[in-house]
Amino acid sequence: MTGDLPVRFADVAAAADRLRGVAVETPLLESEALNQLVGGRLLIKPEPLQRTGSFKFRGAYNAISALRPAAVVAYSSGNHAQGVALAARLLRIPATIVMPADAPRTKLEGTRALGAEVVTYDRAVDDREAIGRDIADRTGAVLIRPYDDARIIAGQGTLGLELAEQAAHIGARLDAALVCCGGGGLVAGCATALTHLVPGIAVYAVEPVGFDDTTRSLAAGRRLGNEPGGRSLCDALLAPMPGELTFAINAQLLAGGVAVSDDDVARAMRLAFRHLKLVVEPGGAVALAAALAGKVPTRDRTIGIVLSGGNVDADLFARLLAEAA
Amino acid sequence: MTGDLPVRFADVAAAADRLRGVAVETPLLESEALNQLVGGRLLIKPEPLQRTGSFKFRGAYNAISALRPAAVVAYSSGNHAQGVALAARLLRIPATIVMPADAPRTKLEGTRALGAEVVTYDRAVDDREAIGRDIADRTGAVLIRPYDDARIIAGQGTLGLELAEQAAHIGARLDAALVCCGGGGLVAGCATALTHLVPGIAVYAVEPVGFDDTTRSLAAGRRLGNEPGGRSLCDALLAPMPGELTFAINAQLLAGGVAVSDDDVARAMRLAFRHLKLVVEPGGAVALAAALAGKVPTRDRTIGIVLSGGNVDADLFARLLAEAA
Repeated sequence: MTGDLPVRFADVAAAADRLRGVAVETPLLESEALNQLVGGRLLIKPEPLQRTGSFKFRGAYNAISALRPAAVVAYSSGNHAQGVALAARLLRIPATIVMPADAPRTKLEGTRALGAEVVTYDRAVDDREAIGRDIADRTGAVLIRPYDDARIIAGQGTLGLELAEQAAHIGARLDAALVCCGGGGLVAGCATALTHLVPGIAVYAVEPVGFDDTTRSLAAGRRLGNEPGGRSLCDALLAPMPGELTFAINAQLLAGGVAVSDDDVARAMRLAFRHLKLVVEPGGAVALAAALAGKVPTRDRTIGIVLSGGNVDADLFARLLAEAA
Repeated sequence: MTGDLPVRFADVAAAADRLRGVAVETPLLESEALNQLVGGRLLIKPEPLQRTGSFKFRGAYNAISALRPAAVVAYSSGNHAQGVALAARLLRIPATIVMPADAPRTKLEGTRALGAEVVTYDRAVDDREAIGRDIADRTGAVLIRPYDDARIIAGQGTLGLELAEQAAHIGARLDAALVCCGGGGLVAGCATALTHLVPGIAVYAVEPVGFDDTTRSLAAGRRLGNEPGGRSLCDALLAPMPGELTFAINAQLLAGGVAVSDDDVARAMRLAFRHLKLVVEPGGAVALAAALAGKVPTRDRTIGIVLSGGNVDADLFARLLAEAA
């Protein structure tokens, strides 16, 4: 059924081989308190514990280690930036990263600390893809796209592969999985692995309200963009529309999409603080938020939850913690 | 050499068998940024990810599952309370926990949520041991001591066993380990495992300034208490003096003790937030604080760091995050 898709399970398995001993195999966590809140069983993959604090290192290392270019360039709001920067440094390849000037400080500083050259742009007026292509043209660097790339998708899919294997290891049968979605690379990769390994599983994309392009595109059967001018806490999930490759995969493999509000996200971050002892960034908390807000059925079901990253500034985190839970 | 001690390596190995599939085998984490800060390699065991949010579940489950009493009672500032409460619930044994009225809310609420009956006392005037003994006498419950008990020490030692095995698995050779110390059960158990499995390792107890009874007792060669009236952020580490059993072990196996200030602890909590994406409570951060503050040599050395728990109230965590790093 998936033979005609741009990424197959074998590509994810090959990425897992490439990442072994390089990426962290994040543990599978579970909380009695969260399970009680949803009346089911949540099996949680905590990518804040991944190198660079998000899943993005998986795809970046898979793509760059396969290509071995002389130099790389990438555009990113911050997590892909750090993933590319660390992967390039480990492979001794120079990296230039194009980032919005208003990206979280922790992401800007983290990318520079990993040795990459950072070029900032104005999110409101500049075209980051054009800036990235221009740098690639001038310097001969290979552009590492954030999601619409088969090697990136396969690398992100290793998270889904681990989730399936770790759930099986403890004797759990996943009924569904909730995965955050910006451009759709992570959910496409995870769905490739999960639908192969767990027949019948329902994989959902989770997006912020106002940036639910994949959810609406899945319902419409064609790619739709977001209305301009939307705002969201989830700086990592602001892609304007689904990717071509990612949507081709997601349209075939996903059960659907759901959207969560900033309030849903803040509550999930507080509950992750309290019950999981994890720092989760807004975009990284949407899947847990969807489960807690009842966006999909949870009662008596076992659901994989991807916490995709933890790169959040201390002042924002402290402010969200201080709000009533 | 350790044959005459109250806990032997075989006791820790037996505890590990009892805890397999019940306790979380917490992962071994590493951060490029933290390694750079200390000029060495820190291999970090994150017990905030343990069930109940601290290592205390290990010892509690080991003791209660070995004894299988009709009922249990314990006194604790909160982490042992939750460890005993969950272990008792899993083993279907009623539990009464004696806690200070000013314990962190998250610990009081967490203990009640696990089904235990909570009896509070005034830390300034009441004798918690007497209250615990009185409940034990009246109800026939078995008192589960927080640290001065061979089964508790053996259970906590499983953390050290995992640290040694996980470090060996990635080909790392531990030069030293830093372990937090209140009554000394965790460091005694960890030292039992680590000195057996890693010959030549230097294991240090880390305490808060003002509660450095084990550090001074190790130097003096006999048990010394803390001056009354001391204050510390580290609510989990306020035991008045070393235990009899724990000191017998620690005097023979430890390389020494060091003490860290509240400022050292707050900085370690902020750096764990930023670079590890973990919520660490003050008492859980003293070992990382000691490494970052240069209390032991770190340059070009590989050091095991125990983060012992993450049960901290949101308002305190937010306040410490907001202070300048």
